Amino acid sequence: MSEPTLLVLAADPPPRLGKLTGRVRVQYADEQSLASRLPYADVLLVWDFTSDAVRLAWPGEGPRPRWVHTPSAGVDRLLCPELVASDTVLTNARGVFEEPIAEYVAGLVLAMAKDLPGTMELQRQRRWRHREGLRVAGTRATVVGAGPIGRAVAGTLEALGVTVAVVGRTERPGIHGAQDLDPLLARADWVVCAAPLTDATRGMFDARRFGLMQPSARFINVGRGPLVLEDDLVAALNKRWIAGAALDVFVSEPLAPDSALWDVPGLIVSPHMSGDTVGWRDRLGEQFVDLYELWEAGKPFPNVVDKKRGYVPMHDVSAD
Amino acid sequence: MSEPTLLVLAADPPPRLGKLTGRVRVQYADEQSLASRLPYADVLLVWDFTSDAVRLAWPGEGPRPRWVHTPSAGVDRLLCPELVASDTVLTNARGVFEEPIAEYVAGLVLAMAKDLPGTMELQRQRRWRHREGLRVAGTRATVVGAGPIGRAVAGTLEALGVTVAVVGRTERPGIHGAQDLDPLLARADWVVCAAPLTDATRGMFDARRFGLMQPSARFINVGRGPLVLEDDLVAALNKRWIAGAALDVFVSEPLAPDSALWDVPGLIVSPHMSGDTVGWRDRLGEQFVDLYELWEAGKPFPNVVDKKRGYVPMHDVSAD
Repeated sequence: MSEPTLLVLAADPPPRLGKLTGRVRVQYADEQSLASRLPYADVLLVWDFTSDAVRLAWPGEGPRPRWVHTPSAGVDRLLCPELVASDTVLTNARGVFEEPIAEYVAGLVLAMAKDLPGTMELQRQRRWRHREGLRVAGTRATVVGAGPIGRAVAGTLEALGVTVAVVGRTERPGIHGAQDLDPLLARADWVVCAAPLTDATRGMFDARRFGLMQPSARFINVGRGPLVLEDDLVAALNKRWIAGAALDVFVSEPLAPDSALWDVPGLIVSPHMSGDTVGWRDRLGEQFVDLYELWEAGKPFPNVVDKKRGYVPMHDVSAD
Repeated sequence: MSEPTLLVLAADPPPRLGKLTGRVRVQYADEQSLASRLPYADVLLVWDFTSDAVRLAWPGEGPRPRWVHTPSAGVDRLLCPELVASDTVLTNARGVFEEPIAEYVAGLVLAMAKDLPGTMELQRQRRWRHREGLRVAGTRATVVGAGPIGRAVAGTLEALGVTVAVVGRTERPGIHGAQDLDPLLARADWVVCAAPLTDATRGMFDARRFGLMQPSARFINVGRGPLVLEDDLVAALNKRWIAGAALDVFVSEPLAPDSALWDVPGLIVSPHMSGDTVGWRDRLGEQFVDLYELWEAGKPFPNVVDKKRGYVPMHDVSAD
C-alpha cells in the first residue's frame, strides 16, 4: 500500500511536516496548479489560506481529497457548494488563535479606555495634555460570536471586571440568541465582533445596528471584514454615532494604500494580526501533524467544521 | 466653640466641600499666601498637590495645622524635616488611584506586547505590514513597590495570566524584600515601578539596573519621575539594553516641549494620567469629606502616612 498524498497549498514548506517523512507523499501546489493536482490528493493542507484558490479549484463531483485542513479559524474563503455537499471532512485551527485574539481585544479595550492613541499622537507633537481615562472594570461588553474565540474574548474581558454578554446563533446556557442582539448592542460600552462569516452574518454590522449603539460605545472587529459594511461604519464614526472603532479585518486585504479607512477619526486600523503571536506558524504546523496522526490511525477528529453552518459547532467545542 | 479652619491650597474650590457648610470655616490659599495662612489653619487640604508650596511654607516650630490631607498617592512633594518631626497627621488618597493605575499598566503591557504603537505609526503611513505579537499570558512581571498600587497592578496582571513578583522594602508573605530586586529584574519580561519616592528609592532605576534586565524586557514607571535616572533609561533604550519603556511620570512635569524624552525610539510618554479616570476629582472630594467627618468626631483615621517612611505602612493597609 502506497502512502497517502498530502497536497500543500503553499509557496514555502510549512514547519514540522518533516515529522511525517516516509508516511506521506508531500506535493506542493500554487494557485495555478491547484486545480490539476487536487483530484490526486488524499489530504489538502491549505497553508496559504488567504486566497479563494480552493473554492475556485474544487473538483466538484470528481475525485477529491477526503480531508481538507485550514490553519485558520474562519473557513469562509474555502466553502463552495460542492465542498459543502461532498463527504470531504473539513477541519480548522481551533485552539491556536483564541487566547491571542482575546489578549489583543483586551489590549484594544484598555488602549481606547485610556486614550493611548491620543497619547501617542500628542507625544509625536511633543505636547503635554493631561486627560482623564475611563475605568474598564464595571463597563459592559457585547461579544458577537459564541465560538471559542468569542468565549475567550469574554473570559479575558471578565477578568478585567467587564460585564460581558455573548451572542450566538441560538440561545443556550450562558449564550444569548440572535433575538437579543439589538438590545444588547444598545447597552454595550464595547461591541466585539468575533462571528464566523456566513450567509447569515455577512453585513450584519450596518447603519441600523451602528445607530442602535450608545454614542460612547466602541466597536471592535476581529472576525472577518465582510461582517461589517465599512461605509456604514465610517459614516457612524464621522457622525459620532459611536465613539470609536478598531478593525483588524477588512473586506479587501491587504488594505490598499489609498483606502479611505486609514485616516477615519477614531478608527484604529491593524493588518489582520490579532491572533498571530510569535511561534504561531510552528503551532499551526504541530497542530496539523497531530491531526494527521489521528487521521492516519482512523481515529475521530477534533475541529471538524459543520460545513453547512460554516464553523465548528458547539457540541464539538465543549467535547474537550 | 467656633468651627475649625480648613485651609485649601487650590485655585478653584474642590467638589463636595459644600457638605461641610456650617461645620468648618473654609479659607483658600495660593502658593504666595500659603505661608501667612498656615499658622491659623486647623486642617490643610493640599488640593493643588503638584507643587512644592507646602514644603516651602511649612511653619516649622510655630503654630500649624493638626492635620494635612493630600489627594494624591505619593506624599514626596509635601515632606520636609519639620513636618516629619511634628505631631501633625498626614493622610493621602489611598483607595482612589490603585485600580485605575492597574488598568493603565495592563493597557501598556498589552499595547507593547501587540505593538500597538507600531500599528498606529504604520496606519499614519497607510502601510499594511503584518507583524507577530507576543502572548502576555505566561510572561513574568516584576512590580517594584508593595503598596496598594503595586499590589493592584500585580492583581490585574495576574488576571491576564502573567506571573508576578512584587518587591517591597522588607520581605513578608507574598512580597519579596529589596535583596531580591536585582535577580527579579534580570528575570522579568515587564518591570513596573510603582514605588514611593523616598531617600531610599530616589534614582533606583539607573544604568546598572537597566543593564541587568533582559534585552526583551519592557520598563514602565507609574510611580514618581525621580525614581528613574532618565538619561540612563534613554541610553539603555538607545543601546537596546531593553526593548521598550513607558513613562507616565517625569523628573520635571509637565515635560518641556524640547525634552529629549519625547522622541526616544521605543519610549511611550504620557502626561501623568495613569490614575486619573472620569470622576476622579469628585471621588477625591468625597474622600476628603469622609475623612473630615472622622476627624471631626475624633475617630481613628485610615490612610495615615508614616512620615518617616514616606508612605502608608502595610499594617494600616491590611486593616481594611
